[in-house]
Amino acid sequence: MLEKVDLSNKTPKEEYKAVIPELRLRLGELQRRAKNKGVPVIIVFEGWDAAGKGTLINELLLALDARGFSVHPTNPPNEEERLKPFLWRFWNKTPEKGRIAIFDRSWYGRVLVERVDGILKKKVWARAYDEIGSFERQLVDAGAVIVKFFLHIDAKEQAKRFKKLQSNPATAWKVTKDDWNHHKQYGAYREAIEEMLVKTDSDYAPWTIVEAHDKRFATVKVFQTVIGAIERAVDRHKGRRTDARPKKAAPRLERTTSVLEKVDLSLSLSREEYDKALKEYQARIRDIEHEVYRKRLPVIIVYEGCDAGGKGGNIRRLVQGMDPRGYEVITIAAPNDIERAHHYLWRFWTRIPKAGHIGIFDRSWYGRVLVERVESFCSEEDWKRSYKEINEMEEQWVNFGTVLVKFWLEISKDEQLKRFKEREKDPHKQWKITEEDWRNRKKWDRYRAAIDEMLYRTSTTYAPWTIVEANSKWYARIKALRTVVEEVEKRL
Amino acid sequence: MLEKVDLSNKTPKEEYKAVIPELRLRLGELQRRAKNKGVPVIIVFEGWDAAGKGTLINELLLALDARGFSVHPTNPPNEEERLKPFLWRFWNKTPEKGRIAIFDRSWYGRVLVERVDGILKKKVWARAYDEIGSFERQLVDAGAVIVKFFLHIDAKEQAKRFKKLQSNPATAWKVTKDDWNHHKQYGAYREAIEEMLVKTDSDYAPWTIVEAHDKRFATVKVFQTVIGAIERAVDRHKGRRTDARPKKAAPRLERTTSVLEKVDLSLSLSREEYDKALKEYQARIRDIEHEVYRKRLPVIIVYEGCDAGGKGGNIRRLVQGMDPRGYEVITIAAPNDIERAHHYLWRFWTRIPKAGHIGIFDRSWYGRVLVERVESFCSEEDWKRSYKEINEMEEQWVNFGTVLVKFWLEISKDEQLKRFKEREKDPHKQWKITEEDWRNRKKWDRYRAAIDEMLYRTSTTYAPWTIVEANSKWYARIKALRTVVEEVEKRL
Repeated sequence: MLEKVDLSNKTPKEEYKAVIPELRLRLGELQRRAKNKGVPVIIVFEGWDAAGKGTLINELLLALDARGFSVHPTNPPNEEERLKPFLWRFWNKTPEKGRIAIFDRSWYGRVLVERVDGILKKKVWARAYDEIGSFERQLVDAGAVIVKFFLHIDAKEQAKRFKKLQSNPATAWKVTKDDWNHHKQYGAYREAIEEMLVKTDSDYAPWTIVEAHDKRFATVKVFQTVIGAIERAVDRHKGRRTDARPKKAAPRLERTTSVLEKVDLSLSLSREEYDKALKEYQARIRDIEHEVYRKRLPVIIVYEGCDAGGKGGNIRRLVQGMDPRGYEVITIAAPNDIERAHHYLWRFWTRIPKAGHIGIFDRSWYGRVLVERVESFCSEEDWKRSYKEINEMEEQWVNFGTVLVKFWLEISKDEQLKRFKEREKDPHKQWKITEEDWRNRKKWDRYRAAIDEMLYRTSTTYAPWTIVEANSKWYARIKALRTVVEEVEKRL
Repeated sequence: MLEKVDLSNKTPKEEYKAVIPELRLRLGELQRRAKNKGVPVIIVFEGWDAAGKGTLINELLLALDARGFSVHPTNPPNEEERLKPFLWRFWNKTPEKGRIAIFDRSWYGRVLVERVDGILKKKVWARAYDEIGSFERQLVDAGAVIVKFFLHIDAKEQAKRFKKLQSNPATAWKVTKDDWNHHKQYGAYREAIEEMLVKTDSDYAPWTIVEAHDKRFATVKVFQTVIGAIERAVDRHKGRRTDARPKKAAPRLERTTSVLEKVDLSLSLSREEYDKALKEYQARIRDIEHEVYRKRLPVIIVYEGCDAGGKGGNIRRLVQGMDPRGYEVITIAAPNDIERAHHYLWRFWTRIPKAGHIGIFDRSWYGRVLVERVESFCSEEDWKRSYKEINEMEEQWVNFGTVLVKFWLEISKDEQLKRFKEREKDPHKQWKITEEDWRNRKKWDRYRAAIDEMLYRTSTTYAPWTIVEANSKWYARIKALRTVVEEVEKRL
């Protein structure tokens, strides 16, 4: 793609002066419209060292209302970032609805510097093309605009600029040995850049190559591209809802045979069996927790299940003997304002544990295809798309090395009723049972259909569901403990 | 304080079994009450290595609803944390209203390991006593409960526990060379601990020393202490408001002579003077920005001023030639949900720049004593207390090495009217003027009194206000630029 770029492109000063004030005004106006429509905008600047990313970004900023944007310079990952899947730190920085996030370098470092400098094995960086593709597609599907610039200069121009920076004492330190080393590898970089541009160009997140020899030409092109992209998005959003409310309720699916019907809920344990197994597995999990830390293994355990399925008590038995420095229980309730203003997966991405730690999710991203589906908190299109999005996310985590264990705690409708009534009677447990629980119970069949489809569509080779027969709390606790012990031990 | 502690205290197993279920239930119940009342709870665990912090914390967690707490293990500060004032990372972790934050080690590392191991100079760690004192007082004044435990074991017991850990292959790695070195320095640590306990014991955040030889005894003491503290706080909160709305409007102050009346608003510059000075200072600020980064100088610039005082245009001229990687404009609007659920200074603490970067606040924490005071968004008690809190915060930043420049952009009432009318006429500026601006203008005198008091109470030797005569935009821009250049250059 760089082959046919004409680097001699120039914009004369007079022409620039004539056009730029209007471009600034239009960009400012579009920022306000994007804000009103709740469109998040992501602008990525990649390019050669000294191609002028900083200068161009500043030109953009000056036209924008500072209340509505953030600039994210991308440095090599720090320790915490290296202990999480590589897109984690970019998920963290995705903009809220109506805000603009500008990335000065970005996730593309994965297939540029980390590739060319040999920091990563081919197996790892090559996978990033897919991961980046799904990251960008997920954001755009949820309404974001992504504009990606590659600032192109040739090797000669780069050397000239390095020398100029070096000649000024205030900027000389900016040109490092690494920069000159990269300059010497201009050819190798160019190959990597070509591959990147081709593999990650898409209709939802296209690349714009900017001829960056002439600053004025580059500035105008950047403004025009950003303006065009936001304009199209804002127009598309005309009449489109900006909140999560759907236009119509999700249709009720027909019941088919269900994997859940084959679950043997009569499975149980005696008190003695339970006490003995509990003691044994709790001792093992304590040692496992230490090993997990020592080997920096990332572990994510997901608890989903019927209301009153016993998630809380089950999790308590799992962590009872553990060291609180090594695990965290992440309880998922309804999203808050800030979470609602992001992609629905954002609040899960931002909370995954560091490698070496165990993150236990009490409810999870599966809310999208359970409560959000059944209660019509999102559109049908939204929850249908999310099976794929969830699988992609989980695959990325597993590729990173994560042990991912997912539990569905299954109880019968009768058992649920019994437990609800018990809770109502016990003064220490009354707070656990609400009107909402009774309302949800009335929708038992609709939840069944959603659970079935979830188990079917998101049981993957890399992240299968474990169905836990939970009419017997003792049986369920031991099965969950044993599963965690076995799955983690396989990887130690 | 450790002298008189009887480490032979024990709780027999039967007694423990009799009392602990009840303590767990009460703690769980109090967590729910604290949540309902919006009381944030902070529990700090300090203590000797191997004193059993992890085990005790886990005992607490098992009694709590995981939706309502976070555990924060404290490790040595990472690079980003070292580039910010030392309390920054703890401010970040202060709990929302109704949540519990448990710190496994804490800000006290500043006067323990960082002191005893000689990581910090005495001048630096000794200052931490005051900083910690004001940090804890500010949180408690805003309604938080702080419970601080020191887990005490003697040197003999510590050696015994280290050896036991070493004898198990799964835990042997947990005992490091550092641990044994600290053990050898038991005496020196004990002196530091004594000093810390005495200097940071207070009525609002008292220490509880826990005799930790016997785990059961320690567990019961921890439960009882936490229960007592939350109970007292919840009872105190009876009838107390949990949101930021005050009971009555702030009274109108009498006008006295004002420093603002002596400001010469006729000061101005000619077009030629302005163009020349702008060029000169913008060139200097570009070099200064590079030097700031190279020397890792933290810089915070605050813009406050009348509506239509020209803050936006002024900031734009300041950053026009700068590299966006080195500065950030932080625009402060009304707080969101999450921000409102924290101490009002939290959203500023969390957003200060790293050393080497320039953070420009477009409006700031001074909103507390301006709009929040005049519009009665907080109680009189709240804003009156905040002068001291703001001074303490700024002093901490300055002690850390921050260059802090605070601008008040002053215009006359007539000039404001002129600018409002201009904005209404200009189609590109109409969005800048709202009904609220007109409403605020009607309260001109009440704002005057608040501004006066702010300038008087928060102009300190370490963080003085610079009043910028802003009827002439050109004059104001150059004065602000020149002040920034001069203040930063003094420190380079």
